[in-house]
Amino acid sequence: MRALVERLPAEDILFYADTARIPYGGKSKETVIRFSIENAIFLFEHSIKLLVVACNTATAHALDKLLQLFKIPVIGVIQPGSEKACQVSKSGKIAVLGTKGTIQSGAYREAILNKLSTAEVVSVACPLFVPLVEERYIDHPATRLIVKEYLKPVKEAQVDTILLGCTHYPILQRLIEEEMGPGVQIVDSAYTCAEKIAHTLAELQLENDQSQGTYRYFATDDPEKFRINGEDILGRRMENVALAPHPHR
Amino acid sequence: MRALVERLPAEDILFYADTARIPYGGKSKETVIRFSIENAIFLFEHSIKLLVVACNTATAHALDKLLQLFKIPVIGVIQPGSEKACQVSKSGKIAVLGTKGTIQSGAYREAILNKLSTAEVVSVACPLFVPLVEERYIDHPATRLIVKEYLKPVKEAQVDTILLGCTHYPILQRLIEEEMGPGVQIVDSAYTCAEKIAHTLAELQLENDQSQGTYRYFATDDPEKFRINGEDILGRRMENVALAPHPHR
Repeated sequence: MRALVERLPAEDILFYADTARIPYGGKSKETVIRFSIENAIFLFEHSIKLLVVACNTATAHALDKLLQLFKIPVIGVIQPGSEKACQVSKSGKIAVLGTKGTIQSGAYREAILNKLSTAEVVSVACPLFVPLVEERYIDHPATRLIVKEYLKPVKEAQVDTILLGCTHYPILQRLIEEEMGPGVQIVDSAYTCAEKIAHTLAELQLENDQSQGTYRYFATDDPEKFRINGEDILGRRMENVALAPHPHR
Repeated sequence: MRALVERLPAEDILFYADTARIPYGGKSKETVIRFSIENAIFLFEHSIKLLVVACNTATAHALDKLLQLFKIPVIGVIQPGSEKACQVSKSGKIAVLGTKGTIQSGAYREAILNKLSTAEVVSVACPLFVPLVEERYIDHPATRLIVKEYLKPVKEAQVDTILLGCTHYPILQRLIEEEMGPGVQIVDSAYTCAEKIAHTLAELQLENDQSQGTYRYFATDDPEKFRINGEDILGRRMENVALAPHPHR
């Protein structure tokens, strides 16, 4: 959202947060597909012109299905993130950190190898990162121990690039950098993804010509709690936050 | 479930696990009430004679509403757990550990003070315990650090009894005991709750007269994953595990 607002200030954005049913990271492919379709249909009812799947687990499990089902362009976060990692890496040794669902799907590995067939990919599921970030255990000794444990295979593989394959992980970026030491680049998909969205809108001549877009937010659990956390992450006021109506929650 | 099977072997039990939407611990009262009603209705469709809300967060937020709405007896885990803590405590200084939702609801504090008006209650939300248990970080140094941090106010208050107000927490019992040292009793609600259910069934003459009950399990996410985890916790084979049908998931 932050990357999109910066890159495409003229666009109207509807943000849908399924806070009643998160986290998706450990749930099955079938469930994540069902949730993703339900969430997409809510947005379609608001006449969106393009759908961004701004969640790595939902992209990993459900992007193919959404692309099959729906006519409007659908953009996930895995493709852009993988492209950026392949650009940045010199040695071709790339680590991917993500939820269980994202890692087990193999979606990042596949996207990286499609782009750079000689790449060596080390994939690590880091299921405790999301709850640690949500509890603001950002600079806690327990978090450092868990970072150290998860990154052990990454250090052993001597990668030069780490791809943060979950929206929460950039908040732990400094800890990850400290554990890895110098010489390792850390990439996330947000800005590359916003770039891809800009290209797609231009290509399809779908760009807005107004000067300033409007923003609306929907959450499936308590919208006030969502607004407080959201403003903290987004760094801007969120004016139009509403509870998503039944049955879309 | 394990306590019920031991105490009431003649009863048929339907177990419903909302694995697609857990955890409930950080979600709002309104959402937990909505989920709890949906889950209850699924069980009513299977003609149950008594409903056990075997989740502390659901009991804390939704028990009153379920009691208002439905005719059959509904039993939660907070009342029995609180009664046991009050029986066990000599000093009347009792700590309650639970999810954010359970602690913020004040339901345990209220139940304890109703039973023992002179009690001193220290309530601590331990939101990282559930993910740590689910990731099997049971005996990990990071878990020890987090236990130490959460228990700081409990040690300062010099309680003699700790009530484990979440179904996952008994798995961390040894760590909690080691952190607290001797002289502190740890109680959970499972067996007291099974006792209350037995009394209620006897009182209402609803007991089964067969020799051995049957067990059926429903999960809203992948039933196979649920079965594997369930057998591990339950210590018995789970034969009839099914995906709960739409829209009850």
